[in-house]
Amino acid sequence: MAAWAERLAGVRGVLLDISGVLYDSGAGGGAAIAGSVDAVARRPHSSVCAEHTLICVFVPRLKRSPLKVRFCTNESQKSRRELVGLLQRLGFDISEGEVTAPAPATCQILKERGLRPHLLIHDGVRSEFDDIDMSNPNCVVIADAGDSFSYKNMNRAFQVLMELENPVLISLGKGRYYKETSGLMLDVGGYMKALEYACGIEAEVVGKPSPEFFKSALQAIGLEAHQAVMIGDDIVGDVGGAQKCGMRALQVRTGKFRSNLGTMVKLRMSLPIVYRKQLF
Amino acid sequence: MAAWAERLAGVRGVLLDISGVLYDSGAGGGAAIAGSVDAVARRPHSSVCAEHTLICVFVPRLKRSPLKVRFCTNESQKSRRELVGLLQRLGFDISEGEVTAPAPATCQILKERGLRPHLLIHDGVRSEFDDIDMSNPNCVVIADAGDSFSYKNMNRAFQVLMELENPVLISLGKGRYYKETSGLMLDVGGYMKALEYACGIEAEVVGKPSPEFFKSALQAIGLEAHQAVMIGDDIVGDVGGAQKCGMRALQVRTGKFRSNLGTMVKLRMSLPIVYRKQLF
Repeated sequence: MAAWAERLAGVRGVLLDISGVLYDSGAGGGAAIAGSVDAVARRPHSSVCAEHTLICVFVPRLKRSPLKVRFCTNESQKSRRELVGLLQRLGFDISEGEVTAPAPATCQILKERGLRPHLLIHDGVRSEFDDIDMSNPNCVVIADAGDSFSYKNMNRAFQVLMELENPVLISLGKGRYYKETSGLMLDVGGYMKALEYACGIEAEVVGKPSPEFFKSALQAIGLEAHQAVMIGDDIVGDVGGAQKCGMRALQVRTGKFRSNLGTMVKLRMSLPIVYRKQLF
Repeated sequence: MAAWAERLAGVRGVLLDISGVLYDSGAGGGAAIAGSVDAVARRPHSSVCAEHTLICVFVPRLKRSPLKVRFCTNESQKSRRELVGLLQRLGFDISEGEVTAPAPATCQILKERGLRPHLLIHDGVRSEFDDIDMSNPNCVVIADAGDSFSYKNMNRAFQVLMELENPVLISLGKGRYYKETSGLMLDVGGYMKALEYACGIEAEVVGKPSPEFFKSALQAIGLEAHQAVMIGDDIVGDVGGAQKCGMRALQVRTGKFRSNLGTMVKLRMSLPIVYRKQLF
């Protein structure tokens, strides 16, 4: 307990990943991860909590605590409105204004740089791009497009890039995979790598682990990196990215977490991570 | 002319790429590249040849010359039988036994190592795997699957790999793209990179630029590397791969060749290449 208090000394806020930490997406909208609704809630903790774990004792009901909370997600299949609506239906205390997500951040970049995107995205997030000029594309934006990652659509994105003198590829996150209720699912990262390789270019990543993305989430709650802890299930996007920004980080053992250390060794990563079997 | 003769001194055989050199694939089977049928043929050169270029003068009618010829392709959408049938219909003097292709080479490896593949391939090449045990897969084989590179199929291949303790991914070639009559098309390489990244593994490549593949093609015509020249349109798979094996190489300016040096610089490659606007 003392060790935990020491590790978290001076923390004034929490950045919370959503998918794999609060809920697993999937058929019918997905399912809340046990204990997570209570963990975020403003209301007092239920006296009987089957999933009550050590961390519940000192990080109970985030929104009832003095800690500032920001939801920091790479979700790019849904608009913020759709995502927040879904989480609210699952019982979470969350509003659209509390969410930092890559699609709105991308739109800001597109406008600032006069970029007109060819979109390879999921229909669920298309509404975020409603006021973006998409005529005569001079860049490609990809997100977790799910079934829209057909060969035809990938080839079209490739051809657009190959026709540009200075090809710009923006990727909403670079996750390797995520967990749905039905199992592990390929995320946008692999498709980003495919286009990078085929076109001989390097993508610009908007979303975790981009430092700019973490900084914008911290800015939204008025904190410095050393005052915040990132809680996520992705060793690269959440934990590694946050640590590179000077934040502390906790990796949950829900979501895409796998105890396959062999895979981690292959990724050649060695990060000081705090694991919790189940955080909440 | 003297410089050419010097560069090609001691050459006793030619490895010829097929797609982009002899023909461009596409709707209706594709189209022969101008001059290529004559260049391979045993019969004398037509006295009137609109595409007659410098190299015709000293590499006329390969099969009429004393040079040994082997067709060395990464074609993985078609079985050798289908490919040779198509080329014969286009007028080429070619037989199945003259072709080194990745699918048969992969089958040999699968048998030698007791590997049972989950296949993510084009239906056109499936017959090459007819006598391979595919029960309870312990590896994944990908090839240029074209429209079969759906999200669902990619995700299934990903899941098979993630379920294996020692995931083995075999890729038939690692081309970035190729040219069809309708334009540039994504090749298997990008999809290989996607699975490598998502699973944190490295694929084994069967086909060009793998040295084993070139060596098997050379072995088939009984030549050493220094006695042969590779002719292809791919700077990495054909030219770079052959040079690494000790062969000489010519890059044609047909097929996927692009004069976009910017892209090459991005690929950070600097190889001593001989370009021909049109080889034949």
